[in-house]
This record gives sequence, structure tokens and C-alpha cells, in this order.
Amino acid sequence: MNNVISADANAVCVPAIAPAARPGDRLDQVDTPSLVLDLDAFEENLRTMQVLAERHGVALRPHAKAHRCPDIALRQIALGAQGVCCQKVTEAACFVSAGVRDIHISNEIVGPAKLDLLARLAAHANITVCVDNLRALHGLSEALVRHNSTVGVLVELDIGQKRCGVQTPQEAIALAQAVQQLPQVRFDGIQAYHGGIQHKRAHDRRREAAEKAARRIRRYLDALAGAGLDCRVVTGGGTGTAMFDVATGVYTEIQPGSYAFMDNDYGRLDWGDALEFRHSLFLLGTVMSTPTPQRAVVDLGLKSTSAESGAPRVFGMPHVTCVAIHDEHTMLELKEGADRLALGSQVRLIPGHCDPTFNLHDEVVAFRGRTVEAVWPISARGLSR
Amino acid sequence: MNNVISADANAVCVPAIAPAARPGDRLDQVDTPSLVLDLDAFEENLRTMQVLAERHGVALRPHAKAHRCPDIALRQIALGAQGVCCQKVTEAACFVSAGVRDIHISNEIVGPAKLDLLARLAAHANITVCVDNLRALHGLSEALVRHNSTVGVLVELDIGQKRCGVQTPQEAIALAQAVQQLPQVRFDGIQAYHGGIQHKRAHDRRREAAEKAARRIRRYLDALAGAGLDCRVVTGGGTGTAMFDVATGVYTEIQPGSYAFMDNDYGRLDWGDALEFRHSLFLLGTVMSTPTPQRAVVDLGLKSTSAESGAPRVFGMPHVTCVAIHDEHTMLELKEGADRLALGSQVRLIPGHCDPTFNLHDEVVAFRGRTVEAVWPISARGLSR
Repeated sequence: MNNVISADANAVCVPAIAPAARPGDRLDQVDTPSLVLDLDAFEENLRTMQVLAERHGVALRPHAKAHRCPDIALRQIALGAQGVCCQKVTEAACFVSAGVRDIHISNEIVGPAKLDLLARLAAHANITVCVDNLRALHGLSEALVRHNSTVGVLVELDIGQKRCGVQTPQEAIALAQAVQQLPQVRFDGIQAYHGGIQHKRAHDRRREAAEKAARRIRRYLDALAGAGLDCRVVTGGGTGTAMFDVATGVYTEIQPGSYAFMDNDYGRLDWGDALEFRHSLFLLGTVMSTPTPQRAVVDLGLKSTSAESGAPRVFGMPHVTCVAIHDEHTMLELKEGADRLALGSQVRLIPGHCDPTFNLHDEVVAFRGRTVEAVWPISARGLSR
Repeated sequence: MNNVISADANAVCVPAIAPAARPGDRLDQVDTPSLVLDLDAFEENLRTMQVLAERHGVALRPHAKAHRCPDIALRQIALGAQGVCCQKVTEAACFVSAGVRDIHISNEIVGPAKLDLLARLAAHANITVCVDNLRALHGLSEALVRHNSTVGVLVELDIGQKRCGVQTPQEAIALAQAVQQLPQVRFDGIQAYHGGIQHKRAHDRRREAAEKAARRIRRYLDALAGAGLDCRVVTGGGTGTAMFDVATGVYTEIQPGSYAFMDNDYGRLDWGDALEFRHSLFLLGTVMSTPTPQRAVVDLGLKSTSAESGAPRVFGMPHVTCVAIHDEHTMLELKEGADRLALGSQVRLIPGHCDPTFNLHDEVVAFRGRTVEAVWPISARGLSR
């Protein structure tokens, strides 16, 4: 194979590609596929969760992994959020660069390049990070010593998700004591997140699961206290259980992410009448083919919305169902007798799962009513190291 | 909400994020998650498909939607490919900028911004595009008149996929005749792609389905010929059916994409002993947590690999199974008695579906043996308009 073949990485597209949207545009002028955010619904969701947390004296630290968008994080913080959570060090670097100064990396960080970046980041912001392994903790401390920076450490507990985290109170105590003995790391407390219960549909089953998780956390806290280990921070909880988590008394902080957007996965839950979030995030698509009266094909697919939890849902058109999603197409089926969708008309879809959907887009088009108000870069898109 | 809040879109990450890999690095030094390409397997796959097409006198026009990477397209063309297919106009613009001069947009293009870009692109490269609707055809011709450029038009047939495409030979004839009457559009032939049969697992059932599709195309070709409409181009076929498509005698050109990479979806097919492709594309991950002897957690998830067709498959470790994938984690389960995976060790995963997986990454790390040979930008990532 010819080694001289090489595409120019810095080539600018000829001809240039026009932006999908500009502030002041009408929403129906936005080119598609685009990810769009209804600011009225979004702002209401932010306030709803902030008020819930404050009413219970619990800090709100929204998970920025949901959106990877600094403009959104800054708005969450302006309303009273403590800072944000990130899941990755490179993601955190992006938010620090955008001016966020308090970041919890709610994940285990392993590997020399990542530890090096983490230690350098800690010179620019208040950083906490999770640990569930003694060897990993030693690596973290050594990297921090090399860069003369400090982070807070939260011992992660596995309270039923069966992902990361220590398995017993004894392990938690041993790790916390090791943190206290190592340089440049500070024992701040614990993280206990149970993703598996966030999507239990029934309101009561979700509440029971959240309360059971809280009882497990309590047992860990008692064991740690018995060993003289005080947890300044107990962080966990998500959008599905936040309304129950805040009332358990075990958390000092909750870390929901999806509440700001309410994707289709969360939209399917039974919310009782306790807490209401609105769908604020949509995919805007255009009808590109109408081969039969009952069939319409929309110009977006798996490269614009993640579908591991199912196809997106059509918004505001009760007679239209999304029946399949391909790489670049979404297939809609119309009820018999319904008016054919017009070629070139716009369709709004609710994404199944907001986190990986945001990560497919370079920007989100923020609108109010029928007008584009801003176009926000999703600056941490693709930053998964 | 405070309107002055604004993240700096041009902010550079402070501190800077180091590249994941550099040419000359050992593969086990590459930071993770990374998308990596085994060049020996990749080049063999390219040759296998090129030889198949040439032996049957059929042109090969690989689908660039599979990789969105100009460096890969240029290698396919250097080996004899006719050009590439794209699915989107912005994607095509990227490949034109990288030096590709013959592009078939295998999709319907609707909307003023897209038609404007398409018409401007046609001044820089030989472009063909699909049409399945008379109104859309008029819009295309008008945009081309405005820019004084020309494209070839392929009438798309729905031969069973039930996506885009005309439904009857009469519709095909009417559209083709309209193309002949409108300015700046040239009738070049037909596109007939049946994605639904590409993944039929059994070799014989896939062959029968491909032959049935070819018979449908033949009926369309006969009807068009009866109306005096000659099809210079008959394009279609994919990785799953290419071996059968080339022998049917109806296609002048095949447009497979995944053959170069052989993802897990295609790897599951029964290939008989007729055609062999090797897995060349992998996700490189790091074991970031080993909370129990049987459990290992890898530092990549839905933001690094698409999973709508299932979790990725572990490569080269028969005792390890991928049991779940979350946003940023992949859960591995070890057979009882197997050695625990070492924290910090690398794992290679075969992605379920290559097209949307490429679209999650900014670059692909090309390696040979144990050494990184190049890092290729996936320049058309995210270009879905």
C-alpha cells in the first residue's frame, strides 16, 4: 500500500458548509438533523431540581456527562448548583477551561496519561475523584506528588449496581485509611450511585429501591464512623430516584443529569404527582421521502441519536409512530387515513437516551418559542479519555 | 436566567490534552478509549473485495458512510475503487475537500441548504444523487440551475427494504422521463439497495434473498428499457450480499462499506467458504476496576461504541464475555477459575456496528503488528446534514 497517500487533516471543506442555525433564525429554518433545546422547558427543569435539593438541604451537583456542554453547566451553577460531575478526565479538562472550578470525577481513573492530566487539572480547580482499588489509589497519589497538586478522594461503594466500587465496609475502611496515609490525597467521603434502579418504571418500586440503597449506604457510614472516618461528602442519586434520595438523609449531594432534558427513557417512568420534568431536548429532522401514503422517512439516524434503548419517539404527532431507525434514516408510520406528511416538513423527535445523543452533536440549538436564541457548542463531545 | 452566561467556544483546554497515540508508539501505549485499525487485516479486506468486483467486471464504489475517513477512502480508490458513496451532502463535501473526485450520494436530498451545497459541490467533482419524488427532483434541478452545475440522477427503487424509493416501474419511468426533460440533471440509471437482507445469517438464505432482489431489479430494467430509458449505472449491494450480487448480472456497481472492517454484526454471518473478511477494527479499552474476581470494568461505553445491535465482543479472550455496556463503562464477566484481569491492562473489543462507531471518534489509530503506523482523522464525523 502506498504510504504517500494522505488526506490533509487541516483541509477546509470546499465549498464551505453553512451553519445549521444562527441566533434569530426561526426554528423551522434550522437545517437538519439538529439537536435542539427548548429553553423554557429546560430552565423550568433546572429550577425544579434546584428547589428540590435546597428544600432538603442537599447540594445539587448535576452530571455534565449528560450534556458535555459548558454553556449548560454554567447555567446550572448560576442557579445554585455546587459544581458539576464529570465521568472522564478529558471531559473535566474541558469544563475547567470553560470556567467551572468545582468538579467531581465520579469514576475510577486508571492509566498514566489520565493520572497525569488529572494531577495537572487539580492545579486549576477543586477536583474530587473516586477510588475503589488500593493500587489505583497509590498511582493517583504518586501522580499528584509529581505535580504537587491535591485532590479529594471519595471511596466508591457498590450498593447493588454491580459495576465499580468496593464490596464490603471492611474494604471501604481499608481504602479510606490508606487515603489518610498517602500524600496529596484527602479523604472526603463516599460515592454510592445505583444506576440500575433509576429506570424502574413504577413510582413505588423506585422509591423502595432508593430506600434500600440508602439503608446500605447507612451501614457503610456507620462502619466508617466506627473506624473514626468522617464522610464530609456522600454523593449519589440520579434523575429517577432524586425525589426519594433527598429525603433519605444519607446524601449530602445528589448528581442527576438527565432531569434537565427528560429523554424518552425517563419520560416512560411513572412520576406520581411528586415531581415533574418536561421534555426539553429534541432532534429536529426533515421528511426526505414519502414513498407510500403511510410511510415517511426522516433524514436522521443512528449518527444523530443513540438507539440502544429503542428508537426515538415522535413529538406532537399522535397519529405518527417511529417504527425503525437506520444509520441515516428514521422510519415513520402514519395511522391509516392520516394526512400524508409533506416532503420537506420538519419533525421533532424525543431521543431515547440523552447522554450518548448529546455526544453525537457538535452543538445544540437553544430556542424559545419559535425562535433560535443561541447555538451552544458541545465542547466536551468525544472527550472520553 | 442570566443571558450574559457564555462559555468560550474557542477556549483551548487548560491544561492541554495529550494525543492518544503518535506514529511509532507501541499499541499498548495508546491511551484509551481509542478506535484502532489493524492495517494488515484492513488491506487484505480491501484487496479481497476489489478482486471480487474486478473478476465479475463490476465496479466497486465503497460506502464512505461506514468510516467517514478520507485516508481510508483514498486507499480504497488507490486499489481500484471507482470513487465512493456518501449518504449526506456535508459528508460528500468533506471527501471532495480531501481530493475524492467521484462521489455518489446514495440518498434523497431535500431542503434548500442541502440542495445549495450539493449544487456548489457539483462544480468540484462528479456527483450523482438519488431521487424518488418528482417535487424533490424539481427542487434539485432549480438549485443546479442557480449554480450552473450538473449532477447525474439515479432513480431509487424500493426493492423490499421499505425505506425510500419508488414503488412501481411506472413511477420509475415517469421520474426518469422527468429527469430527461429538466435542466442540469442527467439520467444515469437506478439505485436498488436492500439493507434488510444484508444480515440474514444463513449463507443460502442470503443468496436467495439477493437473487430475488436482482429479479426485481431486472423487471424494473426491462420496463425502463421498454420506455427507451437506458441505465448506464445500476448500483446497490452491500457487504453481506456482495458475493452474490456480483454474479447476478444486473449491477454495474456495488457499494459495500463494512467489508473493510468486519464488525460483530457481519462477523456473526455464515460466510460459507466463498469470501472471507477479517476483523480489522477494534476498540481499545483499559481495565479500570476489578471489584470481584469474576468482574472487570473497561473504560469505554456508549460514547465510544454504538450498541443498538448489542454490546461489543471481547477479542482474543475466550474466557471473558462482555455482559453489559453503559455510557462510559463496559462490563466484562470472567469464567469461574479464570485469572483475574489486571487493573490497567488493555482489552480489545469488536464493535457491534462499525458505521455509527466510527462516527463517535475523531480519529482512528492505524497499527501494524504491535506498532502505531498512523493516526487518521475521521474528518466527516458528525457531518450528517
